[in-house]
Amino acid sequence: MKIGIDLGGTTISIGLVNDRYEIIEKAEGLTCCEEGPEAVIVRMGKMVRELLQKAGNPPISYIGLGCPGVLDREMGTVIYSNNIKWQQVPVCQKLREQLQVPVYVENDANCAAMGEYLAGAGRGSRQMIMVTFGTGIGGGIIFDGKLYLGRHGNSNIIGHIQIEKGGRECTCKRKGCWECYASTRALLLSAKQAGVFAGVDDGEINGHLFFEALKEKKEAALCVFEEYTDYVAEGIADLINIFDPERIVIGGGVSAQGELLLAPVREKVKQKIYFKEMETADIVCSVLANDAAVIGAANLLSQ
Amino acid sequence: MKIGIDLGGTTISIGLVNDRYEIIEKAEGLTCCEEGPEAVIVRMGKMVRELLQKAGNPPISYIGLGCPGVLDREMGTVIYSNNIKWQQVPVCQKLREQLQVPVYVENDANCAAMGEYLAGAGRGSRQMIMVTFGTGIGGGIIFDGKLYLGRHGNSNIIGHIQIEKGGRECTCKRKGCWECYASTRALLLSAKQAGVFAGVDDGEINGHLFFEALKEKKEAALCVFEEYTDYVAEGIADLINIFDPERIVIGGGVSAQGELLLAPVREKVKQKIYFKEMETADIVCSVLANDAAVIGAANLLSQ
Repeated sequence: MKIGIDLGGTTISIGLVNDRYEIIEKAEGLTCCEEGPEAVIVRMGKMVRELLQKAGNPPISYIGLGCPGVLDREMGTVIYSNNIKWQQVPVCQKLREQLQVPVYVENDANCAAMGEYLAGAGRGSRQMIMVTFGTGIGGGIIFDGKLYLGRHGNSNIIGHIQIEKGGRECTCKRKGCWECYASTRALLLSAKQAGVFAGVDDGEINGHLFFEALKEKKEAALCVFEEYTDYVAEGIADLINIFDPERIVIGGGVSAQGELLLAPVREKVKQKIYFKEMETADIVCSVLANDAAVIGAANLLSQ
Repeated sequence: MKIGIDLGGTTISIGLVNDRYEIIEKAEGLTCCEEGPEAVIVRMGKMVRELLQKAGNPPISYIGLGCPGVLDREMGTVIYSNNIKWQQVPVCQKLREQLQVPVYVENDANCAAMGEYLAGAGRGSRQMIMVTFGTGIGGGIIFDGKLYLGRHGNSNIIGHIQIEKGGRECTCKRKGCWECYASTRALLLSAKQAGVFAGVDDGEINGHLFFEALKEKKEAALCVFEEYTDYVAEGIADLINIFDPERIVIGGGVSAQGELLLAPVREKVKQKIYFKEMETADIVCSVLANDAAVIGAANLLSQ
C-alpha cells in the first residue's frame, strides 16, 4: 500500500492506494496556502496519519506527492510554484520527518497522466499524451509506461505552444498560446463576451452553466462551442503531428462532457493533421477525474 | 562496414560507412524518378556494386536506406512518397534481390537525425530534436540514442504544427503551419516579395543570394531575416516547451550560416519559452550536412 497526495492551490486530496491501483481510503481538505508552507505540510502530515488510522494503520512503502510548479525531484524540493505560492520548499524531507516514510514528489499533471495510464483511460497505450483543460492547459507524456520528463523535468508545457501568432496575451508573456483559447477559462471568457451568461453574476459563472446553455441549444453557446472545439482540435492536431501517439486522454472539468466534446474535436482533428488517411490517435476522456493524480502519485515508483 | 543510401527527389547519395561512423567511399547520382521505381532501384543497386568494387569489395552487414514519405518498415515498403512519386514499392526486397544483403528502410529525416546524433552535432545528448529547414521543415526525435517513431512511425511532422491560425495555406491543406513561414522556401518567397532579388530571374533565386544581400546589410534583406528568425524561434520554442530537450540541431541549407542564424534565434527563443529563467536546450547547427542521412541510414541497426 502507498499514499498518494494531490496538492492543489485550493484542495489537498489524499488516498491510500492498493497494488491494484484502487483508492481504499480517501480524505480531502483545504490547502489554505496563505498560511505558508510549514503549516500546509504539517496539515498534510496530520491528514495522512488520520487516514492511516481510519484504515487500521496498514504499513505503507512510500508517499507520492503531486505538486504544481518547478521541482527538484532528487532533492524533493518545490523550487517554485505559482499555484501554492511556494519557493524553495524541501517538502519531501519535512513530510518524511513527520511520518517516517520515504516521500517522492512529481508534477501534478504528470501524476494525473500516470494515474490514467495505470488505472484509467490510458491503460495499455504505448504512447499516451494527457491534456488537462482547466484554468490553463496541463500535460503529461508517457512512453512505454514511463513519464517523459526531458532534460530538467520541465517537458509537457503543452498549454504554451503557439496557436495564433500575435494573438491573446498569455500569462507566460508570449502571445497566442494554446491555453489562451482552449482552456476552460478561455471558454468561459468567450461565452461571457458572447452573452451566454446574461444576468448571471460573475462569481456564479462556471462550466456547468455553459454546458446547460449548450444543451438547450442557445445560439450564442453553440457559436462559442464551435469555435472552442476548433481551438482544442488545433493543439491536439499539433500533438498528433509531433508524437503520432496511440492515445490522447483529455482531462479536466470539460472531460465530464464525454462525446459532446469528443465528437466535434475528433472530426476537426481529422481535417487538421498531416496524414489524413491514416488511423489517428484514439482521443478519449479521462475516467478517474480527480482521483487520477492521487493514484498516479501513489505509483511514482511503479514506472 | 555498412552501406547508407539517401534517396532524395533529385539525388541519390551512397556511402560506405565504417564502425567509427566515417564515410570511407562515396557516390552520388541523379534520381530521375520520372523513370519509375524499378529503374531507380536498379540504378541504386548498380551504384552500390560500383562503390563496393572501388573500395575493394569489403563484406558489408546491411544496407540502410533513407527515404522520404510514409513507410512500412517491417515489410520494407514505401507506402507513399510524394517527393519520389512512389506508391507501394517493396524497395527493400527488390534491392536485396539485386545485392544479396539485408536492406532496411527509414524516413530520411530520421536518418539525418540519427547521423547527427551518432557522429555530428547531436553526440552525447539524451534528448535531441533535429529540425531540417528546406523546401519544407522536417524533423527527427531521438531519446537515449533511439529514434522516437510513434504509433505508426509517423511522428515528427514538426513542420506542420500551427503557428498562425488562419494564416498561409499549407500543402497539407491546414492553414498557418510552421513550414509556411520558416522553411527556406518561405524565406526566399518573402525575400522576393520584399524586393531583395530585384533584377534576378526566378530560376536564379537561392539561399546563397539571400545571405549575400543580408551580409551586405541590404535593408529589405535585414527586415525579411528579422521576421524569418522570429518564425523559426516560434516553432523551436514550442518544441522546447513540449520536450525540454538537451539539444536542438538545425539542419538544411540555412544551417551553413552558423551563428548568423543561431544568435538571433537563440535570443528570440529565450523570450518565447515558458521557463525563461532556466537553462534552455542547446541550439546548434548540424555539422554533417548531406552526409548525415547517409551515416544515419548506415547505422539504423546501431540504435
